[in-house]
Amino acid sequence: MPADDDPRLGDVSEGTILRTILSRTSPSSSTILGPGDDAAVIAAPSGSVVVTTDSLVHGPDFRLAWSSGFDLGWKSAAVNLADIAAMGAAPTALVVALAVPRDLRLSFVACLADGFREACAALAPGCAVVGGDLTTSDVLTIAVTALGDLGGRPAVTRAGARPGDLVAIAGEMGLAAEGLRLLFERFRDDGTPVPVDASTLTAAERSAVDAQLRPQPPIGLGPIAAVTGATAMMDVSDGLALDAARLAEASGVTLALEAALLGSDPDRALAGGEDHALLATFPPETLPPGFRRIGTVLAPGAHAVLRDGEPAGAAGWDPYRDWDGVADE
Amino acid sequence: MPADDDPRLGDVSEGTILRTILSRTSPSSSTILGPGDDAAVIAAPSGSVVVTTDSLVHGPDFRLAWSSGFDLGWKSAAVNLADIAAMGAAPTALVVALAVPRDLRLSFVACLADGFREACAALAPGCAVVGGDLTTSDVLTIAVTALGDLGGRPAVTRAGARPGDLVAIAGEMGLAAEGLRLLFERFRDDGTPVPVDASTLTAAERSAVDAQLRPQPPIGLGPIAAVTGATAMMDVSDGLALDAARLAEASGVTLALEAALLGSDPDRALAGGEDHALLATFPPETLPPGFRRIGTVLAPGAHAVLRDGEPAGAAGWDPYRDWDGVADE
Repeated sequence: MPADDDPRLGDVSEGTILRTILSRTSPSSSTILGPGDDAAVIAAPSGSVVVTTDSLVHGPDFRLAWSSGFDLGWKSAAVNLADIAAMGAAPTALVVALAVPRDLRLSFVACLADGFREACAALAPGCAVVGGDLTTSDVLTIAVTALGDLGGRPAVTRAGARPGDLVAIAGEMGLAAEGLRLLFERFRDDGTPVPVDASTLTAAERSAVDAQLRPQPPIGLGPIAAVTGATAMMDVSDGLALDAARLAEASGVTLALEAALLGSDPDRALAGGEDHALLATFPPETLPPGFRRIGTVLAPGAHAVLRDGEPAGAAGWDPYRDWDGVADE
Repeated sequence: MPADDDPRLGDVSEGTILRTILSRTSPSSSTILGPGDDAAVIAAPSGSVVVTTDSLVHGPDFRLAWSSGFDLGWKSAAVNLADIAAMGAAPTALVVALAVPRDLRLSFVACLADGFREACAALAPGCAVVGGDLTTSDVLTIAVTALGDLGGRPAVTRAGARPGDLVAIAGEMGLAAEGLRLLFERFRDDGTPVPVDASTLTAAERSAVDAQLRPQPPIGLGPIAAVTGATAMMDVSDGLALDAARLAEASGVTLALEAALLGSDPDRALAGGEDHALLATFPPETLPPGFRRIGTVLAPGAHAVLRDGEPAGAAGWDPYRDWDGVADE
């Protein structure tokens, strides 16, 4: 699109921006009242609603040289959908609070809306953006809240794992982290992020970068795990070892993971987080399709994660500790 | 608190910050599952949930010289609670996505949490923060999502006003705007915001500044309006004239406002927005306590707001057009 046809946000009205977004939004099948009023109304047939919120902030969470508007819409949706799925619920709706710099182009916001729509269509059909808020800011910030329905079941928390249960995972382990490593290693010039040249990547590298920029958590498997009898569940957002330790602590058990079941690179699997895989525990012999066993729940009280009997390191991401303060320049 | 006992956020862990916030959070009476898991679970006894999101961003929405952490927590809660009330619903829960600079003090975040708790206690008892997200950013951004329950009633939208209805308002008209005017006029030094010296303000001026920094929308009157038969409702966030025009357009009617009913300063009442008063229409003779008549709904199709028979100006706030780009320095 020629720049003349693609104004900066500071040169158009709030109404124009909102119309651009709303025209790219599909209806949610749970919508009772959609955008256009002070609030939306969403069906909650179970008599309860699951709610979670998660933001992406320019700098600690993404670089604009690496992520397109579409990527950011997709990822913002995916990380929130995964938190809903991790409770055993089906996502019903998203609301999005956007704080967007005035020098960004209108097409960027359009692509962001496309990313939200396509992520919902691919990962959680029937779910959609039903409302939002738009303001200006010097730092692009995408704050998403997701709602979900439990289908009449109790929520699957982190606290229900029992000795003897299987430890299982659905989704990638460490692929998104490998993608991030590739971005930092290959697509910076003197420390500054530069656009990804996909032609320089092997197919495997490309799928790792894709996993980082547009993760595909197995949202549909969350409710299936719940129906199958998952005793505990969470999504892996900060690293498998760290998140497994949280589940172990909440349940008052030890998770014994087996390195041979953690794929070709167990260290990467244990450290990697942003795949938003579903980590769950199941009674023996009840693993549903899509989940694979990675270990066993041991005696209560130890609050630890063991890798082949030894304590597993719990490296993970803490934005206050780990962000280097750099955005794009 | 001495600065030594009040570390900057960049010098403490995410866990410390989260514990500081959660220790200051009251439970919501609708909470089925509270903080600590991937998502919270909130009762939705009507089988539906009302949802809205609204952010405050440093710069366009507030200045740190004027607003304390407590003020910002309070206001972030209040503006979202008002959107729930405007649908005729009772607020049940808030989730908060915070993006906070690393040089802010831990006490600031503690006061922010206090402001959320106290605003809920004062404006919507039983509602509370049930979950959130924390990340770092160079721009302080507070993105709140509020949930509410309709008590089995249909939502009151902007679209139901009928000719012959009364136009009524509950809450202040223009007081918060007067407070903002005072802040800009009296508490800037060479254009830069400076702290408010309350001793230089009259009692009336102080209440105007308070209305801007800690608005008190009449949240409880939203469900009462719905029960009484309100035909349309919205909260006044962008200015009475502008928001009334939106209600008129959604309903396909004309709202005839009477200047004599708009208080001592009708111009200020028509332009002022941030009081988050509830604007509603009611069938004749059915005004509930707390609402006062400000006009009448006229024949359909005109989509306009008249002030004593003449078109009312529709000035209002558009952050992309109106923010001067200045934060605090």
